[in-house]
Amino acid sequence: MKKLISSATVQKALQFIREQELLKNGDSVVVGFSGGPDSTFLLQLLLIIQNIFNLKIYAAHLNHKLRGKEADEDEKFVREFCKKHKIECLFDTKDIQKIAQEKKQSIEETARNERYRLFNEAAQQFKANRIATGHTLNDNAETMIFNFIRGSGVSGLRGIPVKRDNIIRPLLGLTKEEILDFLKKEKIPFRVDSTNFEDDYTRNFIRNKIIPLLMELNPSLFDTLSITADLLRLLEKYIEVEEAKFDKIFVAKKAEKLLRIKIEENVDYKNYLMMDLIRKKINSVFNVQIGYEKTKEIVNLVKQEKGTTIQINEKILALRESNSILVLVEPEFEEVNFSVTYDSKLQKYYGSYFEFKISSASVKEAKLSDNPYVEFFDADKVKHKLILRNWKPGDKFVPLGMKYSKKVSDILTDAKIPSIFRKQILVLCDGPEIIWLVGVRLSEKYKVTNETKKVIKARINYDFEI
Amino acid sequence: MKKLISSATVQKALQFIREQELLKNGDSVVVGFSGGPDSTFLLQLLLIIQNIFNLKIYAAHLNHKLRGKEADEDEKFVREFCKKHKIECLFDTKDIQKIAQEKKQSIEETARNERYRLFNEAAQQFKANRIATGHTLNDNAETMIFNFIRGSGVSGLRGIPVKRDNIIRPLLGLTKEEILDFLKKEKIPFRVDSTNFEDDYTRNFIRNKIIPLLMELNPSLFDTLSITADLLRLLEKYIEVEEAKFDKIFVAKKAEKLLRIKIEENVDYKNYLMMDLIRKKINSVFNVQIGYEKTKEIVNLVKQEKGTTIQINEKILALRESNSILVLVEPEFEEVNFSVTYDSKLQKYYGSYFEFKISSASVKEAKLSDNPYVEFFDADKVKHKLILRNWKPGDKFVPLGMKYSKKVSDILTDAKIPSIFRKQILVLCDGPEIIWLVGVRLSEKYKVTNETKKVIKARINYDFEI
Repeated sequence: MKKLISSATVQKALQFIREQELLKNGDSVVVGFSGGPDSTFLLQLLLIIQNIFNLKIYAAHLNHKLRGKEADEDEKFVREFCKKHKIECLFDTKDIQKIAQEKKQSIEETARNERYRLFNEAAQQFKANRIATGHTLNDNAETMIFNFIRGSGVSGLRGIPVKRDNIIRPLLGLTKEEILDFLKKEKIPFRVDSTNFEDDYTRNFIRNKIIPLLMELNPSLFDTLSITADLLRLLEKYIEVEEAKFDKIFVAKKAEKLLRIKIEENVDYKNYLMMDLIRKKINSVFNVQIGYEKTKEIVNLVKQEKGTTIQINEKILALRESNSILVLVEPEFEEVNFSVTYDSKLQKYYGSYFEFKISSASVKEAKLSDNPYVEFFDADKVKHKLILRNWKPGDKFVPLGMKYSKKVSDILTDAKIPSIFRKQILVLCDGPEIIWLVGVRLSEKYKVTNETKKVIKARINYDFEI
Repeated sequence: MKKLISSATVQKALQFIREQELLKNGDSVVVGFSGGPDSTFLLQLLLIIQNIFNLKIYAAHLNHKLRGKEADEDEKFVREFCKKHKIECLFDTKDIQKIAQEKKQSIEETARNERYRLFNEAAQQFKANRIATGHTLNDNAETMIFNFIRGSGVSGLRGIPVKRDNIIRPLLGLTKEEILDFLKKEKIPFRVDSTNFEDDYTRNFIRNKIIPLLMELNPSLFDTLSITADLLRLLEKYIEVEEAKFDKIFVAKKAEKLLRIKIEENVDYKNYLMMDLIRKKINSVFNVQIGYEKTKEIVNLVKQEKGTTIQINEKILALRESNSILVLVEPEFEEVNFSVTYDSKLQKYYGSYFEFKISSASVKEAKLSDNPYVEFFDADKVKHKLILRNWKPGDKFVPLGMKYSKKVSDILTDAKIPSIFRKQILVLCDGPEIIWLVGVRLSEKYKVTNETKKVIKARINYDFEI
């Protein structure tokens, strides 16, 4: 075994492992072992370099119960290999076809999920800190081509991750051909890839039809794509760090389904980060995947006027505010119609959006408010019951400082209230007459004057600034 | 003409022009007009939207003298089209085949160069600030696939630039099919692409063999690739700004063929920028293109010991110094052997690498030097002619502060002088005896003591710190 360490293939794999820092001294590794050439080579490789890193080596094998007898023979091969090399292996059997039907997933997806579940179980049981899989340069090229065709951006073009959490892929620097050559030359037996369930239509099409054509133009395609993947991995790492710095412009309130994006000056050149982060944040806050076009529309709100809204989907809106872009779930219409008693202190309505409070106040205090959500009015002018209700078409009153009555709808338009918020604006009424278009305008009739003796203070608290 | 503005194809193109900010009010545009469908559509498009941007429209046409009669008919078509629409057009004829042979370039490259030369000439003549070419989404997809296969990193994957200097590509948002549909529907005549010399083997192979296969997996391939290109353009723009900030760690001395890269702490995550900039700088300073592997080796010098060198090519080396990486042309061996006269003031030898100067000095001054390239020694100990020469194997002397003689080669090893610099180190001799291993160590015998009466000061000036 030791003499194999000088083989060019082993050396190439070792260099890759060192460059990518996949193993460190004393690591415990579970190998996902199907019995096929890649995972057989991976196990052999780890045995050959075991002493360099003082590795503890384990394996895990899932019998997928597909292709009947063949799968059982794979398992038998794995059992024998492990016995011979004294490797502890966790075995499991799952009826993938049945699970796939139950979960309404593809066979490939189900098989993959069940495999990684078993690998993690094995890692726990053996107290291993690494799971190694046998993905090769070929698998990487296929994935990259697939992602290039379907368009999955930078993160797709960097191919299969070399390292993610506790999973490592030590063979991503070798081609399948190099692996088969080594196995043949060293007369190491393996099972023909019968348990490879990744051979779905698309992957086979890429492997057998597309790659041979691409290789006519570039015979070193695998190496070329591997370099591209390396570069994009470096780029992604850089972008991640920069995004973490840029993250401060995002205020994500998951519980309230609200996302605020502060608009900074002169960061146009950061639009890539902006788009990437918006996509991620919207996914995290609203659990919605948005595409390139929508993301671009949201970014372009920066250049739009205050109050401009765009529809992200049937329920979610983005709104340009003065210094930020607000993404939120469009508020549903909720009927409000209740009698406000003079001594009511704290009342909460309309989902979680606001609370309405009314109390008495001094005449002096009445002159000081510049908060549009606080209003003072003359208590003696109130002749009927105080009613808080939704405004409705046809509502009108004489706004403060004016002589003639005006329609509520026109007042709202003039005040540039974004249409999505109009329907949730309320009116406080003295029976049939409007005292206050809440948050927007008081009635001239109810204003506090020098003759006012008793003042009512009304206040609406929003959970967030509109 | 005006009613065509509402056509979906024109609107799509217009949206692209606005989004990418390709035209502004009052622009003067030269259209590269072959007579083929793309450039015919482009001219038509500009005529249709002429009033929106108050455009001045011109054209330029190169008769490539390839395919004889057909090329002349193309020219005739262009002349008639321009006459009909009152467009000034600059015409030129070049024997591309002949020029290609003379310049030892491909037909495609020659044709492209000559075309853009003519376009620029036309822009100058017509005082136009833009040159518009008819590249489409199909051209973009072909370029991206070509670059993906040959591996040209991020800048290759963003495809054909939408805007570069004064060149704009307003059709990069449309497919060739959309363009042909429009031309047919509106009964606008065009010449069959006879002057398209980009149909070399590779491009044809991509267009006719590879793209149809990729489209089996993704029928919206062109749009998908266009989105990828957009994203990567944004990313590239961002990277450019960030690289300009990071640029300060590079000191490029083009005249001296020298590049110094200062090593900063904790910038590992910036390795993508590092690699990209190293590649660009080495190309600019040394006019050498380096690949991924070499670039990576250079970056990895950060983790190596001081004095580690790597060979970039036969002539260029990278050297790890204490706080930087130095990239330089390996100094060639030059013989030095000359008599230094006591009153010599300024002498220059060894290419441009240093000057050697000798003068008299006071005993007091002799004790103050801590510059290794300045040395003081006892003038009365000198018995023969002062000689400055290359050191040679076998040279030895008693170094300052020691009792026994030591080989020059061992002293150089102990002083950790990188091997590439060793051969250019000189010795100052008193006839057969070494006074000073220049820049490294004085001889014990010649040192200035309390008895010294006359002092010689020797100094070597390097153009750059080693």
